[in-house]
Amino acid sequence: MTFALGPNRYGKAENRVVRVHRDTARHGIRDLNVSTQLRGDFTAAHVDGDQSQVLTTDTQKNTAFAYAEQVGVRSPEDYALALGERLLVAAPAATASRVEVEEYPWDRVEVGGVGHDHTFVRRGGEVRTTVVVRERDTPPLVVSGLRDLVLLKTTGSEFRGFLREEYTTLEDAADRILATSLTARWRHGATAPADWDASHDAVRRTCVETFATTYSRALQETLYTMGVAVLRAHPHVAEIDFSAPNKHHVLVDLSPFGVDNPGEVFVATDRPYGLIEARVQREAHECRGHFGEF
Amino acid sequence: MTFALGPNRYGKAENRVVRVHRDTARHGIRDLNVSTQLRGDFTAAHVDGDQSQVLTTDTQKNTAFAYAEQVGVRSPEDYALALGERLLVAAPAATASRVEVEEYPWDRVEVGGVGHDHTFVRRGGEVRTTVVVRERDTPPLVVSGLRDLVLLKTTGSEFRGFLREEYTTLEDAADRILATSLTARWRHGATAPADWDASHDAVRRTCVETFATTYSRALQETLYTMGVAVLRAHPHVAEIDFSAPNKHHVLVDLSPFGVDNPGEVFVATDRPYGLIEARVQREAHECRGHFGEF
Amino acid sequence: MTFALGPNRYGKAENRVVRVHRDTARHGIRDLNVSTQLRGDFTAAHVDGDQSQVLTTDTQKNTAFAYAEQVGVRSPEDYALALGERLLVAAPAATASRVEVEEYPWDRVEVGGVGHDHTFVRRGGEVRTTVVVRERDTPPLVVSGLRDLVLLKTTGSEFRGFLREEYTTLEDAADRILATSLTARWRHGATAPADWDASHDAVRRTCVETFATTYSRALQETLYTMGVAVLRAHPHVAEIDFSAPNKHHVLVDLSPFGVDNPGEVFVATDRPYGLIEARVQREAHECRGHFGEF
Amino acid sequence: MTFALGPNRYGKAENRVVRVHRDTARHGIRDLNVSTQLRGDFTAAHVDGDQSQVLTTDTQKNTAFAYAEQVGVRSPEDYALALGERLLVAAPAATASRVEVEEYPWDRVEVGGVGHDHTFVRRGGEVRTTVVVRERDTPPLVVSGLRDLVLLKTTGSEFRGFLREEYTTLEDAADRILATSLTARWRHGATAPADWDASHDAVRRTCVETFATTYSRALQETLYTMGVAVLRAHPHVAEIDFSAPNKHHVLVDLSPFGVDNPGEVFVATDRPYGLIEARVQREAHECRGHFGEF
Repeated sequence: MTFALGPNRYGKAENRVVRVHRDTARHGIRDLNVSTQLRGDFTAAHVDGDQSQVLTTDTQKNTAFAYAEQVGVRSPEDYALALGERLLVAAPAATASRVEVEEYPWDRVEVGGVGHDHTFVRRGGEVRTTVVVRERDTPPLVVSGLRDLVLLKTTGSEFRGFLREEYTTLEDAADRILATSLTARWRHGATAPADWDASHDAVRRTCVETFATTYSRALQETLYTMGVAVLRAHPHVAEIDFSAPNKHHVLVDLSPFGVDNPGEVFVATDRPYGLIEARVQREAHECRGHFGEF
Repeated sequence: MTFALGPNRYGKAENRVVRVHRDTARHGIRDLNVSTQLRGDFTAAHVDGDQSQVLTTDTQKNTAFAYAEQVGVRSPEDYALALGERLLVAAPAATASRVEVEEYPWDRVEVGGVGHDHTFVRRGGEVRTTVVVRERDTPPLVVSGLRDLVLLKTTGSEFRGFLREEYTTLEDAADRILATSLTARWRHGATAPADWDASHDAVRRTCVETFATTYSRALQETLYTMGVAVLRAHPHVAEIDFSAPNKHHVLVDLSPFGVDNPGEVFVATDRPYGLIEARVQREAHECRGHFGEF
Repeated sequence: MTFALGPNRYGKAENRVVRVHRDTARHGIRDLNVSTQLRGDFTAAHVDGDQSQVLTTDTQKNTAFAYAEQVGVRSPEDYALALGERLLVAAPAATASRVEVEEYPWDRVEVGGVGHDHTFVRRGGEVRTTVVVRERDTPPLVVSGLRDLVLLKTTGSEFRGFLREEYTTLEDAADRILATSLTARWRHGATAPADWDASHDAVRRTCVETFATTYSRALQETLYTMGVAVLRAHPHVAEIDFSAPNKHHVLVDLSPFGVDNPGEVFVATDRPYGLIEARVQREAHECRGHFGEF
Repeated sequence: MTFALGPNRYGKAENRVVRVHRDTARHGIRDLNVSTQLRGDFTAAHVDGDQSQVLTTDTQKNTAFAYAEQVGVRSPEDYALALGERLLVAAPAATASRVEVEEYPWDRVEVGGVGHDHTFVRRGGEVRTTVVVRERDTPPLVVSGLRDLVLLKTTGSEFRGFLREEYTTLEDAADRILATSLTARWRHGATAPADWDASHDAVRRTCVETFATTYSRALQETLYTMGVAVLRAHPHVAEIDFSAPNKHHVLVDLSPFGVDNPGEVFVATDRPYGLIEARVQREAHECRGHFGEF
């Protein structure tokens, strides 16, 4: 009886790379969490314990830090593209590299209403994400995104007319809080944006503004509408993918105390939560990759 | 310009279902975290806000709790199979259901060396996992597994002979600590085990014993060896998949204080960490699903 | 042999109270995590299992939600003062109530540069905190604060001239990154601010601006300087307490690759971290309470 | 206007010290998280930026690792006592040192029913804790403990006869699940145990067995009973302190589906939770320290 090595990959996860730009007195900062992986013909390492073709995860880490200095961090996408290319050069046995970057945004501290030169406050809230997959002799796959963008509408949201059966107890809701912690990832087409930072901000803004201005008949509809708005406004985006927990805010029944609650007091619950996932594509565009595999 | 809904799915995540068996004075407990999802033709819900075919996530939650009583929890796999089947019946528009169950194990408290009838202590450590995907008119896909199984060897592990290039600084290690927090998932073939609990324990034991008794030339080799051992010993397992962070334990240099450190004092580091992922298959067996998509 | 009940307290922790203000089309939101506790003569409940004097934690929860509607949430401090007073009325056996409130701030979503009426984005970053302790016939103790305010300076910080002994290896640093995730709590004196929200913003601003504009010879000195600045600028603050992890950013040695690193690339480390805690008081003011017990 | 430095302390938190004992082929492991702090006259560091009396947190870290080798880790208490004494020697300005140690337990992997020589599995579940405070010319304060010990009884617990008022809706419960994630800390008197490991196991066993065998009329009563049992059985324990969240398991109402639920299906909720804290003392013993300040 023989067995076979199936899909495999390896790398160094969560390198916390902080790059300071201090060419002038007005410093800048990019705060990244960098994970790299290689795929390819690494059967010997698995089956025979032969490491001679293995670019170690320690070396991948060193390269991530060295490239932050040598190439710099103009944007997470620019940095990931350069780093992914280098890893393919350094590891001849690899057929593909994958570089994933999370960025934690910082704002300048304001002193007397003016941004300080070298003091920053971490913005918190959402994290910017980037995944670059490079295969040899193929244009790189670039996926930009964000996660933990928590949005909430206090009105402009209903949920009714759904399927009812034996285990259904939910009542129709004509006016409810809609809240989610959004994860969005958008794959770029052949034409890359000239400025990845500006592109990221623009796509984010389309998502947020659409969430705000669209009446919601379900979180599904809201996500689809956001996706269409992004594809319509940003021609370089080939497809966009959402993962959105429905963060339930349950109206509290205060009637046992003789107190009316006209949509004012809610309990925010942790678990369980609805989880809605959807992708929106340009019709002519072939689906590349599988759900969750961007 | 038109756009299309791509892959999508929805459900209720993280229902914390606790099932007590109290038919006799000697009680039992199964402590589960249950997530359900449906896939299918839900375009109307996304595009037109029409919910008439949507089995709500609230109903999915109700069903998860009701089935814990009506069907019971003989094992996570048995429960997930029944629940997934019910969801397909209840939602005609769905083409597939996915039920994911995590189980938190409890041990009986010992009093005077004897297990108590109705008092339990949560075991902690690893979590048992199950995923059941049901498509209509197809045998169900059953994947059993575990995560957070933290294993460590204080010796019997080396790492040397690896590729060296410009960014390589790592030294060969002839004797190092090897530690990982193992995630393993194994897909069952056509013949299901008669007793899912016994099957789970047996596969787990093979993994742990192989980790202990195999000399390691790299974590890759150790994972592959574990996978082969599982496939060899358990004919009903079709393939097995590992995700294993290399939890680095770095020998501390005490020489500045004139203190020798003969492999005795280590610092356990959090980040970065190596991350090794690999699947082992029966050679004759076609690959079903993609990496990370079990 | 007899034994005695020592200090004890009980309550309901982490009520997630969300209060929407919707009197006009321009909605508002206050998002709170509320924990209440009672102290007093509850010996019978502990020793005899007699609950007749116990205001249950479930009732405390109900009161927290009802008061969010009945009293409203003008500010966390106003709400906590009212809730703490009510709990003393409801529980005659209690000698003191303690109400702790965390607030998660939300910003209005901007659409075309204008804040939206009913859509919000969670700000992330720091959390606003309030503790109100009420004892019968005594003015309430009000402590305002914040946590998780992550501040960083890329320059303007040194650390040198420290004690050196047998286990010391650290080198003097003439220019380093200084970063912390600040927890600050300030106790108000007899004269309460008229507007708790405005007061909170003002104290926070003093902390942040002082951090930015003060040259740092150690985190200890920076904290002390911040404390003095707060006491000087805000007469209603009686004392202020800081807990500040030194979030180390270590300059990466790129010399093995022939790359210079002029203070530009750092690794942000998780553990271990320095932890500096200090309180600054008005000299004439007697110390009330113990460290960590605000 | 002048201001004063109040209580202050500083140190290095969360040193992840792993000590391997490999004197024979049968290895041992102690896996610790070590935090040290100093208190004393450090006004110059805060007010004048003068570090000459400051034993740096980096040096404290070095000492923690060096002592793991030089003194070894016979038990967390033995190690903390030695480390705390050293820190007072090294820092003349300090009046007190505080060493806090968490220990993560590991079990030997079993191979064919026999414990393996050098392979371990992390036990998970509860963490063992130790705090040692040393002041000059005073016997050290030693507090042993544990946290995250999750206990659950499926029966043998009621809650009724409690105070009812305007906001009370809770019904009496004649038979409910009682569950908690226990934190316990016990202070040792003048006579230290000869074997800290054996002492820890014995106190833990008393807690767990008492929880199992005592009928509970409230979590308060259960904690008190556990405390008395510990003081009675372990003469070296001067007092014991509990912090116990009431992990609510709510019976699920299945009647809308025509399904009976005879105490079998529960939902485990995350928030809010009751939080009960109590200390039990020997009557003759004066209270030392404040609640939460062990």
